[in-house]
Amino acid sequence: MNLAKALKKAPVQIVLMDRNNFHTFQPLLYQVATAGLEPDSIAGPLRKAFNGQANLIFRMVKVIGVDLENKKVNTKVGELGYDYLVIANGSVTNYFGKENFREKVLPLKRLVHSLDVRSHLLQLFEQAELVDDPVIYERMMNIVIVGGGPTGVEMAGSIAELKSHVLPNDYPHLDFSKMKIHLVEGTGRLLNGMSDAADKNAQNYLRMMGVELKLNTLVKDYKDRNVILDTENIPTESVIWAAGVKGRILSGVPDETVERSRIQVDEFNQVMGYPGAYAIGDVALMSNEDYPNGHPMLAPVAMQQGKKLAANIIKMMSGKQPEKFRYLDKGSMATIGRNRAVVDMPGGLHFKGLFAWLIWMFIHIMYLIGFRNRLITLNNWIWSYFTYDKGTRVIIRKFDFSSKFRSGERSEE
Amino acid sequence: MNLAKALKKAPVQIVLMDRNNFHTFQPLLYQVATAGLEPDSIAGPLRKAFNGQANLIFRMVKVIGVDLENKKVNTKVGELGYDYLVIANGSVTNYFGKENFREKVLPLKRLVHSLDVRSHLLQLFEQAELVDDPVIYERMMNIVIVGGGPTGVEMAGSIAELKSHVLPNDYPHLDFSKMKIHLVEGTGRLLNGMSDAADKNAQNYLRMMGVELKLNTLVKDYKDRNVILDTENIPTESVIWAAGVKGRILSGVPDETVERSRIQVDEFNQVMGYPGAYAIGDVALMSNEDYPNGHPMLAPVAMQQGKKLAANIIKMMSGKQPEKFRYLDKGSMATIGRNRAVVDMPGGLHFKGLFAWLIWMFIHIMYLIGFRNRLITLNNWIWSYFTYDKGTRVIIRKFDFSSKFRSGERSEE
Repeated sequence: MNLAKALKKAPVQIVLMDRNNFHTFQPLLYQVATAGLEPDSIAGPLRKAFNGQANLIFRMVKVIGVDLENKKVNTKVGELGYDYLVIANGSVTNYFGKENFREKVLPLKRLVHSLDVRSHLLQLFEQAELVDDPVIYERMMNIVIVGGGPTGVEMAGSIAELKSHVLPNDYPHLDFSKMKIHLVEGTGRLLNGMSDAADKNAQNYLRMMGVELKLNTLVKDYKDRNVILDTENIPTESVIWAAGVKGRILSGVPDETVERSRIQVDEFNQVMGYPGAYAIGDVALMSNEDYPNGHPMLAPVAMQQGKKLAANIIKMMSGKQPEKFRYLDKGSMATIGRNRAVVDMPGGLHFKGLFAWLIWMFIHIMYLIGFRNRLITLNNWIWSYFTYDKGTRVIIRKFDFSSKFRSGERSEE
Repeated sequence: MNLAKALKKAPVQIVLMDRNNFHTFQPLLYQVATAGLEPDSIAGPLRKAFNGQANLIFRMVKVIGVDLENKKVNTKVGELGYDYLVIANGSVTNYFGKENFREKVLPLKRLVHSLDVRSHLLQLFEQAELVDDPVIYERMMNIVIVGGGPTGVEMAGSIAELKSHVLPNDYPHLDFSKMKIHLVEGTGRLLNGMSDAADKNAQNYLRMMGVELKLNTLVKDYKDRNVILDTENIPTESVIWAAGVKGRILSGVPDETVERSRIQVDEFNQVMGYPGAYAIGDVALMSNEDYPNGHPMLAPVAMQQGKKLAANIIKMMSGKQPEKFRYLDKGSMATIGRNRAVVDMPGGLHFKGLFAWLIWMFIHIMYLIGFRNRLITLNNWIWSYFTYDKGTRVIIRKFDFSSKFRSGERSEE
């Protein structure tokens, strides 16, 4: 989106292809999943974003493959040639080889996933009201979150807040002292990529909120409704998979350009060995002296690469030399609950608590401006803050609970 | 909901059963269907509505049948005896015997329906951008709405506003002068049940907005993507079915009590011949001197019957005589577009235009208070009013367009 917008006045014809007609503000997926926000609040219609941009055509199509030799893109409705191709199709959930998990766990990468999680959790408690067997009840009340990155940490905090402020009012006959939220992380710390202070404070916050932290712990399997860890088994109906992502590699991307599930690009984002083809964002692996293992898979990297590539395309079209990409790290943050957040600023500055939480809130509301749903989001947050209530505990997407896990609409990656 | 709330302090044990965990504010379904409101804005979680009501248990279950002889309710998770049974399960779309329509047309009675319509319309225009054949294009650009009651009139007006203010910006390459909105009604007038002035003004408004009115016209069939009227054929992909509703008759309701797809009740809402069993709202057919053919199937009737029956149950439990139900008609209204509405007040008073539209707006916002989404709705409406824009043009529920019509999640009645 940043690339296409930056080319608004360039003498080019842009064809933007997406299988969805909207863009998702992924950092807030966890809020939809825990009934804090409506799904529409974090989804921005693409056509609206490009209203009035005469050099852009949007096509809601699924791209089947690319042919970098012959400079063609293949879609469900036909083929299209290109002068410049920009692959910006992001990442998918990484199951780290455990492909059998795909049908069993709940990922949290797309808007439909967040609706699946919301429906799953709410239906779980509806079902729990009908259960007599204490073994089944315990299993229903165990929620396991895999992955201690921002998504896992924010989900754990958000579910802990549901548990303390919302669920006991909605389900007065359920015993929520039996509800356990487990956060499982393979390494010895949370929020990898953030500072040690962020890790330490996030751990403290989560423990205060009753989340059971299991660091240095690997998930070996999930079978017979048991999460098999190397240390113990946890019976559960709910495994939320926030363990990581990997690049989404389109069919036709040459094998020799793919490294660790990302497309290798040079410092101008050009796909190695294929002039005219570029990749940006999560799917692109760009290494330099600062980032010898590639840049982090974060939205700011993608946005900055998009803007830089647009500028470079304009330069190249008028015969000028393109410039190398340099990532400007503006800091990172995660929120664990009301008044509880951690913020790393450039230069080693770290904030926590209410002040960090206010920074988080301000930045996210500013970023949502383009989504026009800013006011609605703000309403929801103000309401939640003062009432300790959440908004939208509505089960719209149903799936058969017993037949585990999802509806026929099971969302593909 | 009104009945259960009115029994809050009564010495009873209420079991509220619903297959959904939310209540839908049906008068605004058409706004969700035309991307004006988020679905969550018109859905209120039932558990939240009854937070703190100690004598009420909510069960999200599907009721399979009733046994009025032995005073039992049969659900998917077992049987429950009762002292008082209140059947308040409303109505379903009426296909008037054309059951083959069920898989072909788009009803608009439930929240999932409105999401289906929204996704259908948006995907239609996405597809139209890829179409070269003028015959197919014409078919895609014909929208047929069947039924000239409030739902049909409000849908027609709302789609006409999309056509003039929103779609041309989103789809600059489509020719919307070819888009035709047909409103088909079997009788000679619109808004049956409202005044002649309401009919006349609604007709004028719709014609001004470019809607093609086809009164005194019957739909004979919909086949090969053609709506067969008695006067002409209209090729179309989109038939929105707002032709009417009928009572939802539970399995086990004795045949002799069912008349014109509603359960016959006396003036105390008791099912004829079955003490302890009651029916209220759309599903109940109560006749008296004022309403010899039964009360209209409208929310105010249902709400008033619920309150009255609660009061009567309290009376009967303390040995007092129950009172007959009397419907207090507070008027009715429909909105056709911005600044355009018609309002009938009791006593023959009629309003139209901006004033009527403001009344409509005020009443609907007041009614949404209990839904807590009032502020959000108001935001959306203020935004739409000043920008001529709509909110949420997001396709979340997908279905395969070519395989006509819906996803596997096709919502049962």
